[in-house]
Amino acid sequence: SPPRRIAVIRGDGIGPELVDSAVEVLSAVADREGLELHFSTEPGGAATYRETGHAMPPEALDRLRTEYDATLKGPVGLPEVRKADGTEAGLLGGVLRLGLDTYANVRPIRLLPGVRTPVRFEPGQIDYVIVRENTEGLYLSRGAGVGNERAAADQLMVTREGCERIVRFAFELARTRSGAPADGRRRVTCVDKSNVLRSFAFFRRVYDEVAADYPDIERDYRYSDAAAHDLVADPAHFDVIVTENFLGDLLSDLGAATVGGLGMCPSANIGRASAYFEPIHGSAPGIAGQDRANPTSQVLSSAMLLDHLGEHSAAERIRRAVAAAYAEGAVEIDERGQPTCGTRGVTRAVVERL
Amino acid sequence: SPPRRIAVIRGDGIGPELVDSAVEVLSAVADREGLELHFSTEPGGAATYRETGHAMPPEALDRLRTEYDATLKGPVGLPEVRKADGTEAGLLGGVLRLGLDTYANVRPIRLLPGVRTPVRFEPGQIDYVIVRENTEGLYLSRGAGVGNERAAADQLMVTREGCERIVRFAFELARTRSGAPADGRRRVTCVDKSNVLRSFAFFRRVYDEVAADYPDIERDYRYSDAAAHDLVADPAHFDVIVTENFLGDLLSDLGAATVGGLGMCPSANIGRASAYFEPIHGSAPGIAGQDRANPTSQVLSSAMLLDHLGEHSAAERIRRAVAAAYAEGAVEIDERGQPTCGTRGVTRAVVERL
Ligand SMILES: CC(C)[C@H](C(=O)O)[C@@H](O)C(=O)O
Ligand SMILES: CC(C)[C@H](C(=O)O)[C@@H](O)C(=O)O
Repeated sequence: SPPRRIAVIRGDGIGPELVDSAVEVLSAVADREGLELHFSTEPGGAATYRETGHAMPPEALDRLRTEYDATLKGPVGLPEVRKADGTEAGLLGGVLRLGLDTYANVRPIRLLPGVRTPVRFEPGQIDYVIVRENTEGLYLSRGAGVGNERAAADQLMVTREGCERIVRFAFELARTRSGAPADGRRRVTCVDKSNVLRSFAFFRRVYDEVAADYPDIERDYRYSDAAAHDLVADPAHFDVIVTENFLGDLLSDLGAATVGGLGMCPSANIGRASAYFEPIHGSAPGIAGQDRANPTSQVLSSAMLLDHLGEHSAAERIRRAVAAAYAEGAVEIDERGQPTCGTRGVTRAVVERL
Repeated sequence: SPPRRIAVIRGDGIGPELVDSAVEVLSAVADREGLELHFSTEPGGAATYRETGHAMPPEALDRLRTEYDATLKGPVGLPEVRKADGTEAGLLGGVLRLGLDTYANVRPIRLLPGVRTPVRFEPGQIDYVIVRENTEGLYLSRGAGVGNERAAADQLMVTREGCERIVRFAFELARTRSGAPADGRRRVTCVDKSNVLRSFAFFRRVYDEVAADYPDIERDYRYSDAAAHDLVADPAHFDVIVTENFLGDLLSDLGAATVGGLGMCPSANIGRASAYFEPIHGSAPGIAGQDRANPTSQVLSSAMLLDHLGEHSAAERIRRAVAAAYAEGAVEIDERGQPTCGTRGVTRAVVERL
């Protein structure tokens, strides 16, 4: 396969150590699979914002758009770096998701053997993907909310184009993804609050229109409250979930809790021309630089990056190595979500099993 | 104690049979405690909407405001009864919550002994209350969203007054409620997405201002995604949760899943001058009239009604009887959330233990 250029945003807090871990795993798998991967660091995050006034310098965003095949991103953000309206600066989500128009935020939720979970389900009973719309919904208000001393407001807006492309993405994914729900039936669950809100009723209408093009995939509906319930009570039901931005954010953390925590959960942000890959958790500055963070989400995000480049065998190799490390007990996660063998210990355990 | 007038909205679907069950329990407890309760039926719900064009006739709403001490409400709504914008008609939430200005939606989440749950926690580890703001937030848009064929939007608006009164309600509840988190420390957790959205940053700012009046109660914060995670992974942490309307809707169903389902979860809607009490689940028309629905949520809602009237000993009596019925195995809930002894069987089991 051709040489690949990969941008690396190291991020804030635990970001750099996680990204180091993932790059080490990527380099090792590239060796074994004969891939040529070239990594270059690009700036971005809360520290960058503090230094430059931009979460990402505009030239760097341009380079991400034009010079790379994909971007690996660490978690970003520092709680003390805030804007005047009280929201956090330097989170990069607004810049990257809108700037690269990566409209599909893909979040697989999968319980691995050997992983401790607070729910009474087995591996194989939790294996679904949340497709979170990434460019509109309630997040469209990010940085654009209004307010004074007496009230504040944000808007949840969905467009026909935005709904169509995300629903189509979800149905295509249901056709092609390797996992499946316990009953083996392919389905796309539309999650919304269409019984109460007009924007969500619109979302569901567009879902129905697009679904008509996929008679082979089961249509399925949940109001957002019922979805939250069922992700805990009956996760085996789900295959692909498609939902609005704010709901997708919340439901993916909920799903993460059922598979051992945020440290287990990778994600892909995918657009027509660009894509980037990141853990779904934050930068945990409190434990930064102490070799305590779990790099699994970052490593699994790098597997999604390889999938995106068409390198499925290399991607599978990483996923198998991660699964083996947990199944064999080489990696154990304590109650705070931290690996007892340290960040570097997890990296070693995975690399050894590639 | 003085005679009490209680309005009864029987509701749609399984509503009538649940309300019958709760009224039977209330009447039995009134006998034993020497209370005088007078019940009158008032119209409301999707069937009412279909007949009259109003989810509730305006005169009935007036009566609720002026002639009763409290209202017991069954679940309402029929999926086929909809407005032109696609949202459901006849859900009554808009009419009652705004019409009676019942700004505090109080939703206790408590795991009872003998109840099957999908999470690995014991009774005593899940015992918290969600205080959902009930009159603004994203639901303020209900019926007021905008849209055409290309886009649709709703607004999430919070006001200083709305935030202040709900946060104050939550802190007062933390001082007085009987349950407590496992570590015994009183806390009010503010759940929002203030890192991204200005409205939520406003909500958190007002939370901080009000919290200053309650130095005896611990301040606590969760972003909405982290809250969804922690309600599954660490429910014992929570005592009182205060949050916006839409988030409260979702998080309470999530919490319900951890304590055996929606059928276990009562709620109170409380305002300065009015209050009504209802299960947090819907009207399940598919199983209506078949003696299959679980009336526990409705029965526990009637206990909250008694608490509101100051009849704490009668309320406790109902709660103890419900807990005993489950603990002794007299009531068992199957995988669909339905009692194996039927709706009436649950009623009998509770009445026998009063
Ligand atoms: C950090 C935060 C802004 C971000 C989001 O809400 O999108 C994160 O929670 C995520 O899920 O990627
Ligand atoms: C039926 C629905 C409109 C209602 C709500 O969303 O408020 C219900 O889910 C609830 O929680 O009371």
